[in-house]
Amino acid sequence: MHSKEEIAERFKVLQDYICKHLELADGTGKFHEDLWTRAAGGGGRTRTIAGQQIEKGGVAFSAVHGPLPAAILKSMQLEPADFFATGVSIVLHPHSPMAPIIHMNVRYFETSDGRWWFGGGIDLTPHYVVEEDARYFHEALKSVCDDFHPDFYQKFKDQADDYFFIRHRQETRGVGGIFYDYLDEKSGLSHTQLFDFALALGQLFPHLYAEMLQRSQSRTWGAPEKQWQMLRRGRYVEFNLVWDRGTKFGLETDGRTESILMSMPPGANWVYNFQPAPDSAESKTLTRLQKGIDWLNA
Amino acid sequence: MHSKEEIAERFKVLQDYICKHLELADGTGKFHEDLWTRAAGGGGRTRTIAGQQIEKGGVAFSAVHGPLPAAILKSMQLEPADFFATGVSIVLHPHSPMAPIIHMNVRYFETSDGRWWFGGGIDLTPHYVVEEDARYFHEALKSVCDDFHPDFYQKFKDQADDYFFIRHRQETRGVGGIFYDYLDEKSGLSHTQLFDFALALGQLFPHLYAEMLQRSQSRTWGAPEKQWQMLRRGRYVEFNLVWDRGTKFGLETDGRTESILMSMPPGANWVYNFQPAPDSAESKTLTRLQKGIDWLNA
Repeated sequence: MHSKEEIAERFKVLQDYICKHLELADGTGKFHEDLWTRAAGGGGRTRTIAGQQIEKGGVAFSAVHGPLPAAILKSMQLEPADFFATGVSIVLHPHSPMAPIIHMNVRYFETSDGRWWFGGGIDLTPHYVVEEDARYFHEALKSVCDDFHPDFYQKFKDQADDYFFIRHRQETRGVGGIFYDYLDEKSGLSHTQLFDFALALGQLFPHLYAEMLQRSQSRTWGAPEKQWQMLRRGRYVEFNLVWDRGTKFGLETDGRTESILMSMPPGANWVYNFQPAPDSAESKTLTRLQKGIDWLNA
Repeated sequence: MHSKEEIAERFKVLQDYICKHLELADGTGKFHEDLWTRAAGGGGRTRTIAGQQIEKGGVAFSAVHGPLPAAILKSMQLEPADFFATGVSIVLHPHSPMAPIIHMNVRYFETSDGRWWFGGGIDLTPHYVVEEDARYFHEALKSVCDDFHPDFYQKFKDQADDYFFIRHRQETRGVGGIFYDYLDEKSGLSHTQLFDFALALGQLFPHLYAEMLQRSQSRTWGAPEKQWQMLRRGRYVEFNLVWDRGTKFGLETDGRTESILMSMPPGANWVYNFQPAPDSAESKTLTRLQKGIDWLNA
């Protein structure tokens, strides 16, 4: 079993790896780094990029510790203890409406009374759903999951459908992906294996997004597609601020706001009661923002 | 004591009055109306405008009824009963960064077991704080409050400072205004007087905003002011989606999403860790987004 310090160090290396490969994928953008410390213990390094393909992106590492916040004690029914939490979080918003928004998070949590668990996920939010891209994305995730446990992909895919759901719109955020939380030895995997699973997802991530950017390059777009992208970014904002547990928890427990809201798009629009034209590409996308789609065979 | 039907009818007339005067103030914009019904009982008429001064605005009336939602029963520790709720809600986003965003809500609530109360408020969110405008705005609110109760203005002004506070930014949403809730006969005023107070605020509203628009017309602006407006609109989105109890409650209890999110700006931007230049107008505005400012004597 790796120590929490080893896990944090390895997550830092993962952040470096991801940033390096995202810079290569973008072509011109370079990450800028902000180091910060947390009054109650720990800190992080938040890296942001603005490039030729990635309009606004962030890759954040943090490792924080201290007494468990009252809100966690209550929501998880834990006894007072100290906690340690470390992870890497990413959201990337592309310039092109034909490329998807992507999100990844891998995290590790342990308490001074001996509990520990892993959590994380990757999900894809195309402004326009492209079935072949969604299939490629899910196949890649399934391949990593299958290396660790035969049940992981389907279970975590279903959890992503439930988690990345904009309830007040009755839409999924995008084509889903995988989501898992509170993963410990009850999963059948050891601490080391679960950590390796998190690292494998993290190492896949930049290559997966490079492929998505590559596929989008030949797709032309103009003002109507940009306007649709701005509306879909509005939905992304709605999900993150209203439903995302991590965002809400961070903002309500006085986390570092700029790192938490790194996930916000560069811009977003709202139009009252916007309805795309029947049979348009926009309408077709809306019909695919539903839970339970088998993207591997769609 | 007016019946709930009378109150709803009078709020409809108030909506008409406000829309008429806002059209006059804008000069070209006309309201469009959406009628909707609620499966569990009641409905509303949502009116939206896009004009030459008001870029995106909504003036919504609703009157809904049915069993009290479980979330209200729990949060207010009530016994199961039927409720009736009616009100008028407004948010207006101007084109000009030199004009403020404004919000108003007046509402009435009663339950089948005999409880009733009024709630509401008006608050102003300038992109650039102009002290004289804030003073004018607060003086107008105080004048209406003073007609009803000598304590109302200061009490409701303090409550607005607390309510319209973006906790994760440690900023107020703007220069505040007034906010009140659960107002019943314990206030010292009768049901009829409290209803008259709500109507007086509603009748003041369009004239107050007409004055704000008028004052902004001579103020020139360009791309830097527009960019600042887009960032401030991002804060407005953050407040409404993260902290506004009405918005959260509506979205979590399956209210009509398009009417609830009528408050969203037409567009908003986010820039990681944006810091305005020292001594700029933007920096100066930030120093005024604090609780407890006596705008009457600022």
